[in-house]
Amino acid sequence: MSLRVGVIGAGAMGADHIRTIATSIPAARVAEVYDFDVDRAYAIAQPVFANVATSAEALIDSSAVDAVLICSPDDTHAALVRACIAAGKHVLCEKPLAVTADDSMSVVEAEVAAGRQMVQLGFMRRYDPGYREMRKTLRDGQIGTARLVHCLHRNVSSQTSSTSEGIVTGSMVHELDIVGWLLDDEVDSIRVESPVAEGLRDPQLATIWMRSGVIVSAEVFVNAAYGYDVRCEVVGTSGTVSLVPPTPTSIRRAGMDGVHVRDDFIGRFADAYRLELGAWAEDALNGVVHGPSAWDGYVANVIAEAGVASLTSGVREPVTLAPRPTLYSPIEYS
Amino acid sequence: MSLRVGVIGAGAMGADHIRTIATSIPAARVAEVYDFDVDRAYAIAQPVFANVATSAEALIDSSAVDAVLICSPDDTHAALVRACIAAGKHVLCEKPLAVTADDSMSVVEAEVAAGRQMVQLGFMRRYDPGYREMRKTLRDGQIGTARLVHCLHRNVSSQTSSTSEGIVTGSMVHELDIVGWLLDDEVDSIRVESPVAEGLRDPQLATIWMRSGVIVSAEVFVNAAYGYDVRCEVVGTSGTVSLVPPTPTSIRRAGMDGVHVRDDFIGRFADAYRLELGAWAEDALNGVVHGPSAWDGYVANVIAEAGVASLTSGVREPVTLAPRPTLYSPIEYS
Amino acid sequence: MSLRVGVIGAGAMGADHIRTIATSIPAARVAEVYDFDVDRAYAIAQPVFANVATSAEALIDSSAVDAVLICSPDDTHAALVRACIAAGKHVLCEKPLAVTADDSMSVVEAEVAAGRQMVQLGFMRRYDPGYREMRKTLRDGQIGTARLVHCLHRNVSSQTSSTSEGIVTGSMVHELDIVGWLLDDEVDSIRVESPVAEGLRDPQLATIWMRSGVIVSAEVFVNAAYGYDVRCEVVGTSGTVSLVPPTPTSIRRAGMDGVHVRDDFIGRFADAYRLELGAWAEDALNGVVHGPSAWDGYVANVIAEAGVASLTSGVREPVTLAPRPTLYSPIEYS
Amino acid sequence: MSLRVGVIGAGAMGADHIRTIATSIPAARVAEVYDFDVDRAYAIAQPVFANVATSAEALIDSSAVDAVLICSPDDTHAALVRACIAAGKHVLCEKPLAVTADDSMSVVEAEVAAGRQMVQLGFMRRYDPGYREMRKTLRDGQIGTARLVHCLHRNVSSQTSSTSEGIVTGSMVHELDIVGWLLDDEVDSIRVESPVAEGLRDPQLATIWMRSGVIVSAEVFVNAAYGYDVRCEVVGTSGTVSLVPPTPTSIRRAGMDGVHVRDDFIGRFADAYRLELGAWAEDALNGVVHGPSAWDGYVANVIAEAGVASLTSGVREPVTLAPRPTLYSPIEYS
Repeated sequence: MSLRVGVIGAGAMGADHIRTIATSIPAARVAEVYDFDVDRAYAIAQPVFANVATSAEALIDSSAVDAVLICSPDDTHAALVRACIAAGKHVLCEKPLAVTADDSMSVVEAEVAAGRQMVQLGFMRRYDPGYREMRKTLRDGQIGTARLVHCLHRNVSSQTSSTSEGIVTGSMVHELDIVGWLLDDEVDSIRVESPVAEGLRDPQLATIWMRSGVIVSAEVFVNAAYGYDVRCEVVGTSGTVSLVPPTPTSIRRAGMDGVHVRDDFIGRFADAYRLELGAWAEDALNGVVHGPSAWDGYVANVIAEAGVASLTSGVREPVTLAPRPTLYSPIEYS
Repeated sequence: MSLRVGVIGAGAMGADHIRTIATSIPAARVAEVYDFDVDRAYAIAQPVFANVATSAEALIDSSAVDAVLICSPDDTHAALVRACIAAGKHVLCEKPLAVTADDSMSVVEAEVAAGRQMVQLGFMRRYDPGYREMRKTLRDGQIGTARLVHCLHRNVSSQTSSTSEGIVTGSMVHELDIVGWLLDDEVDSIRVESPVAEGLRDPQLATIWMRSGVIVSAEVFVNAAYGYDVRCEVVGTSGTVSLVPPTPTSIRRAGMDGVHVRDDFIGRFADAYRLELGAWAEDALNGVVHGPSAWDGYVANVIAEAGVASLTSGVREPVTLAPRPTLYSPIEYS
Repeated sequence: MSLRVGVIGAGAMGADHIRTIATSIPAARVAEVYDFDVDRAYAIAQPVFANVATSAEALIDSSAVDAVLICSPDDTHAALVRACIAAGKHVLCEKPLAVTADDSMSVVEAEVAAGRQMVQLGFMRRYDPGYREMRKTLRDGQIGTARLVHCLHRNVSSQTSSTSEGIVTGSMVHELDIVGWLLDDEVDSIRVESPVAEGLRDPQLATIWMRSGVIVSAEVFVNAAYGYDVRCEVVGTSGTVSLVPPTPTSIRRAGMDGVHVRDDFIGRFADAYRLELGAWAEDALNGVVHGPSAWDGYVANVIAEAGVASLTSGVREPVTLAPRPTLYSPIEYS
Repeated sequence: MSLRVGVIGAGAMGADHIRTIATSIPAARVAEVYDFDVDRAYAIAQPVFANVATSAEALIDSSAVDAVLICSPDDTHAALVRACIAAGKHVLCEKPLAVTADDSMSVVEAEVAAGRQMVQLGFMRRYDPGYREMRKTLRDGQIGTARLVHCLHRNVSSQTSSTSEGIVTGSMVHELDIVGWLLDDEVDSIRVESPVAEGLRDPQLATIWMRSGVIVSAEVFVNAAYGYDVRCEVVGTSGTVSLVPPTPTSIRRAGMDGVHVRDDFIGRFADAYRLELGAWAEDALNGVVHGPSAWDGYVANVIAEAGVASLTSGVREPVTLAPRPTLYSPIEYS
């Protein structure tokens, strides 16, 4: 029996998820689709034999929908996730959980009130084979104890992150989530600086302190021009482990020997999205959440807000979290 | 509606395919499993809610089975495929189609007599993202006109290919199939030599002439010790394109900076197997065969037999094919 | 006519320089050697037919010595360089010029008083083919305008840099010099932090602001265990350029595919040392200094002292330089 | 005391050697230069304070010349080398020693008659740090026993090798020499084939059998368009070792991440030429020849002639050598 999924938002991300579910996730099938643009909703729903819902709310409440996948604009996320919790349905919400940490907290509180976890955040990197192998290498002791992490996150141009704050909340937030997961650690404080003093402050260089003392340096450059490029190196006391971008071929041509750099994150993280959706569907069928939680979504918001504050203050800003509800007692990541 | 698949043979390959179908192929589900070892059949079938068949024949004829996946020992393939054709069912058969070219031809004749294609061969490399990107690079004219191809195929040790002839028919056969597909060309003749004159003639160095004149050099070394390593470079008149093994991380440790080399082909070609199974299931549901055909299986046998002959004769041996039945009129590869 | 060089200090570095001059620098020959350990001095001097001086001072004043190469302990540098200036002889001094910025300034003042440049500092990286190609790539506009630089500097273990301050002054100082040269820019301020709060603060993460606004992040890890590894990436507005360590071969063996990482800086920078010595000898014969100057040595001291201050203060420390004497008017680097 | 070198031929190769000697070889200095183009000879000789000789013969006989470096056209080599032997002077001759094996043998005979070795051939690859490290890796047993070697030799376009035979004698000859040295082995037989049947038969694929049984596959492609690229992999029973082209930087730009490929052999092998000249000068001063000998030059001619014969015959051709004079008793390569 497969999970009947309702998808809210049929933009590039939603359409890609729908395609992935249809071709690669036996544990799920797309039952309903909602998009503000009705024509688009039909165009995306019909090839996978899904119905088109009349509203996001109708989709969430539909008896034909077991669980919900939210790919709509950021400012709609929190209310939709709360509606899913109210309907008692599992939900996978693209990041961010909410536009502000306060609003994320309202989702956390709703879930805590419901008494069980239903919410997973779309931090897909946790499912990327590269990050997973890095994490395993570290845990297996192959590089000793972690001391530093270096992250790079480059986009071709700033389409979604068009403000200095948006670079932190929209792009850097992936780094802010992954480092805790990678290191089994929590972020203590953050500082964000930029070589560009005025206008769009891009690139940005974040320094992130973990509670263990590990320091993370993270470059985010949304107008890097040459390609979409995500790198990460964990530096341990006896070695280092690094992410290698997937590049199935290399080419020698016109005086160069190298590999193509992609220009899109969907292609770069195609495996991660597929594995994320598969794991989420299995978990939802079992009534559990093992992936990034609403709490993780809240934490990412808090760190990002500290990062934004630092961008203005120029100093290291503490990450001050509310007490962690017992609902989210630390679990062993799978 | 998903394809109900019967799987014959629940060894390492069969078990892996069953797992892949269950987790990643919505278009198919495993309905029945047969293995000579009944306990093994149950152990593999139960987690995916499949039944255990009492015989391969019963599975093929079962009304609960739409299509068949053959992962049993090589010498059972031809008869089982013929039975599938007789039953009018689509079948994906692990290579080889048969132990001899003559026996492969009997399968081809059966399929021709049936009047429609039902048989796909398990040459999974055609679905590997690396080989596909190489093929596209070549077709897009990025490296000019192909002149040479260099292939490497190395295993840790000779478990399945334990005779000099077996290295050709069991391991090199992957090269023998892929080069025609990669180049949209056919093999004209082959010569196989080895630096080892007696006992197990390993490694082997094959020289393969394509009808277009392109020459392929292919090393096959089944006792390469250091890992499972498959490489390929197409040399064109304006550049070259090469396969890059998937390695999601790199490590610097103990005086070395590098990547791990796998020791197993199943892990190396996991994406290829998944994409192969997905495409096959879609095609079977649509009653078509777009993947490697029975004819391709026959051709591989003929080339391999020429290769074995050359290993003894020491000279270039022609590849002499029967006339190609119109059933297999050349199609545009997807 | 070749430059007759007197070498003070026949330790590992001095001995290597002597060997390099003898085998690869036609413009120079080693005329005299001085070392505190007289036996060692003889052992190193005889194979190259050089005399052994009775003291550093005697060597500097010797009529058989045209120019001096200082490879003795750090705390002897400033006085020896001043003696060379007094003797009117060109001198190549291993870094640092002096143990403190004040002492470096005394050397600068002596050279200014002498009215001509005679001093070159041993910042050999400026002669490394990799750094030179990076600099050229940047100047040629191939990566647009520089925004960020990422530096890594790792040693196997802390032999020379055994205190937290020593890591800055002894190891990080190479980064502190090279970034200005690489970017044709000057350091404005620096901050040095470490994930290790007590004892030897290693690794260290420096953030360096250039006057242009470019930010440099520099990891220095003197107990990195796995090897001696120096990396650098300049991130520009249209691309990036990175240093590739020289590795003439790669090896596939025991489940790994990679390259050896050296464990010594002398081997890593052998080309740089050779090119440095050759350029210095030519320049000394011509009575000019084109390499890193006494002023550059002073600047590096000032930056390093700001870095050491930051390691304690935890904040960004300004780099406040004395006025630049006209003797060191900015020149076009060759 | 340095070796006074006379250089015959001031073309690209000769001019580069002269520059290398002047800047990097203390053991030698250029004393005289001869070139058919007198103006060119002066232009090259003056910057290094060398005289211009009136003829090649005058240069060889000059009392101001201790040893000779021959960089003139191929068909002049044998006679000039014989003249050097007659004059009792050491000579480093660019490959080939002679245009035919017979003519090479006449040089060998002259040297044998003279009773001592004076001739070194310009097979500079034996001094390349990459090939040397490969050889050491093999000898140290790190990859077990050699079984196969794969060589690639690609040029941008065919300037010097403009005939099918010329590709063998002018370009492939480097492979023909290096494999014996790399493996401490001798070539037994060779076969040369090409995917191009008519006109300039380029690329060529050579199969070379060593006396030990090791098989070498060597691609030579003089119109490879994309760059000058020389590769080599030795495949042993427990691993492989490969040549890595020297590339001091990598660049990410315009959708690519890679390294530049050179277009010239002089730049690619700059280190090899420098080390070759240094070793030759030292050896000449000591009256010995440790580098590739006249015999090695003869052997390369014989193998190349067998290769040319094979290009026509299409079959494996034996390499039949004259008896090795005791003058060239196998020595331990340094």
